[in-house]
Amino acid sequence: MTKKQPIIAVIGGGDCNQEEARLAEEVGRELAKLGATIVCGGLGGVMEAACKGASAEGGVTIGVLPGDDRRAANPHVQIPIVTNLGYARNVTVVKSSQAVIAIGGNYGTLSEISHALQSGIPVIGLDTWTISRNGKEDKTIITAKSPAEAVDKALKLAKESNDQD
Amino acid sequence: MTKKQPIIAVIGGGDCNQEEARLAEEVGRELAKLGATIVCGGLGGVMEAACKGASAEGGVTIGVLPGDDRRAANPHVQIPIVTNLGYARNVTVVKSSQAVIAIGGNYGTLSEISHALQSGIPVIGLDTWTISRNGKEDKTIITAKSPAEAVDKALKLAKESNDQD
Amino acid sequence: MTKKQPIIAVIGGGDCNQEEARLAEEVGRELAKLGATIVCGGLGGVMEAACKGASAEGGVTIGVLPGDDRRAANPHVQIPIVTNLGYARNVTVVKSSQAVIAIGGNYGTLSEISHALQSGIPVIGLDTWTISRNGKEDKTIITAKSPAEAVDKALKLAKESNDQD
Amino acid sequence: MTKKQPIIAVIGGGDCNQEEARLAEEVGRELAKLGATIVCGGLGGVMEAACKGASAEGGVTIGVLPGDDRRAANPHVQIPIVTNLGYARNVTVVKSSQAVIAIGGNYGTLSEISHALQSGIPVIGLDTWTISRNGKEDKTIITAKSPAEAVDKALKLAKESNDQD
Repeated sequence: MTKKQPIIAVIGGGDCNQEEARLAEEVGRELAKLGATIVCGGLGGVMEAACKGASAEGGVTIGVLPGDDRRAANPHVQIPIVTNLGYARNVTVVKSSQAVIAIGGNYGTLSEISHALQSGIPVIGLDTWTISRNGKEDKTIITAKSPAEAVDKALKLAKESNDQD
Repeated sequence: MTKKQPIIAVIGGGDCNQEEARLAEEVGRELAKLGATIVCGGLGGVMEAACKGASAEGGVTIGVLPGDDRRAANPHVQIPIVTNLGYARNVTVVKSSQAVIAIGGNYGTLSEISHALQSGIPVIGLDTWTISRNGKEDKTIITAKSPAEAVDKALKLAKESNDQD
Repeated sequence: MTKKQPIIAVIGGGDCNQEEARLAEEVGRELAKLGATIVCGGLGGVMEAACKGASAEGGVTIGVLPGDDRRAANPHVQIPIVTNLGYARNVTVVKSSQAVIAIGGNYGTLSEISHALQSGIPVIGLDTWTISRNGKEDKTIITAKSPAEAVDKALKLAKESNDQD
Repeated sequence: MTKKQPIIAVIGGGDCNQEEARLAEEVGRELAKLGATIVCGGLGGVMEAACKGASAEGGVTIGVLPGDDRRAANPHVQIPIVTNLGYARNVTVVKSSQAVIAIGGNYGTLSEISHALQSGIPVIGLDTWTISRNGKEDKTIITAKSPAEAVDKALKLAKESNDQD
């Protein structure tokens, strides 16, 4: 593991449907294959599926937990970060990444998308929120049609961010 | 001042246009007239206009600041809360309220809307974000057409929340 | 209420003995008489006694709560700030003040003393922790022998801080 | 890397003297040799020396940064966690560990010691703070005379914590 390895956030609901879980697991697998570390909120649903996929390929998985107990982490989290900050930990999840892949998700995911955009961290969306102002869609969320495309875009954008370092 | 006085969050951009400032100032004035306390992020733009309106009517204004220096608060904040938490303070802004009025706004405002919805705190929008999933608008953000309507709706919803206490 | 009113943090155990409660209540009363606002952690023990004393004299009391529910605030808190940050809210309690009065207290209080000293905010101690490095007491915590002395010292130091603004 | 690997926090000043740096580097080396992961605040001084020692032995190092930029991490941090929470990140540093080794340190270190004790996480001290109440030393901070002894005690206590899981 080296500091120059990209860290990609995978965000989405703590509960999710089967299709979202499938997408997340494949995203996790692809990221790990290409040498990226995953950071997520550490719980179930999309977070667990992404960690499962990454672990299966020998990737590193970080779970930034909202509560006080590292045992709340899903079984595929290797590095549990215990914050006890509640949803304020969402900011840490995205700020620790160089790009974010959002899959489905509820209001917590939308808060993470917002914090990422606020911080200038690119967001790639797979079947996730769209946002509009004054009746006009804000296209800053980059859309992807498949896990492979999402991972490809995330790693390219993360690389640009690393090259600026 | 009593604990049963409603606290309403007014959120929006730190930079805003004249129309947004006008709306925010009127929202602040109306809230103060009706006995509500304002909580906001304590900085400029919509936050400052809302505090200005409230102060003019003798209302109480709380500013939950992202930085380390209370002097960053706008001049109409009476109670500066210094967090040094950066954008994680957005969670405190909305959680300290019983209803949220969102005016215009950028990604920071969207993060506050999301955190409020995630916490079950009602959000009333004046010319602010709309959000959609799977191509379908999520109507949980309540729209208002005027400051008076926004304040009226916010106070009714805050009262319901207080009555449940 | 004006922004130039000093805000003094009163910190101490959520459980406390009768003598500590008596000291805290008198500190609260004296602070309110002299026009200061109180900020505290919002819960029981020393926090509640200080808010009770201040309220009896018509003072303003702010409670920065660790949890998710404003109803956890003691009955003498007028302005509940809801953080859901757990003990990380201790930083907000002290940073929102211009001087800190510590009464008794356990490890949470010690963390608040530490964060205040780290931020250059003066700490006045009434029967509270002493701290030593290399066998030598660190005298940065200012001791007081009575509530009146503690309040007098806190307000003088807060005034110096305000004058620097 | 597996979740059952102990995570030990190493805390101390961002500036430190040569002797403290030597102790921290040896602590880092010993922890890595025995399979522990290090979590720290990610900056210089004791944090950097501990990460340097651990890295030299192939250990994993996590830096929980106070600011907004992962490039502020010392060069031996492999996993930078970007919080932008300022000193509130101190809580995350200790809560993410099963035992804490404190070396020297200033008020920030004292706040971390306090937060650990408040959370029931054991603290082993090497030439660090002593704390007293009512003129009586609180012996909850476990003292060690050498890096090897500190690491030995930390790992035993972390193991007990893991066995309880």
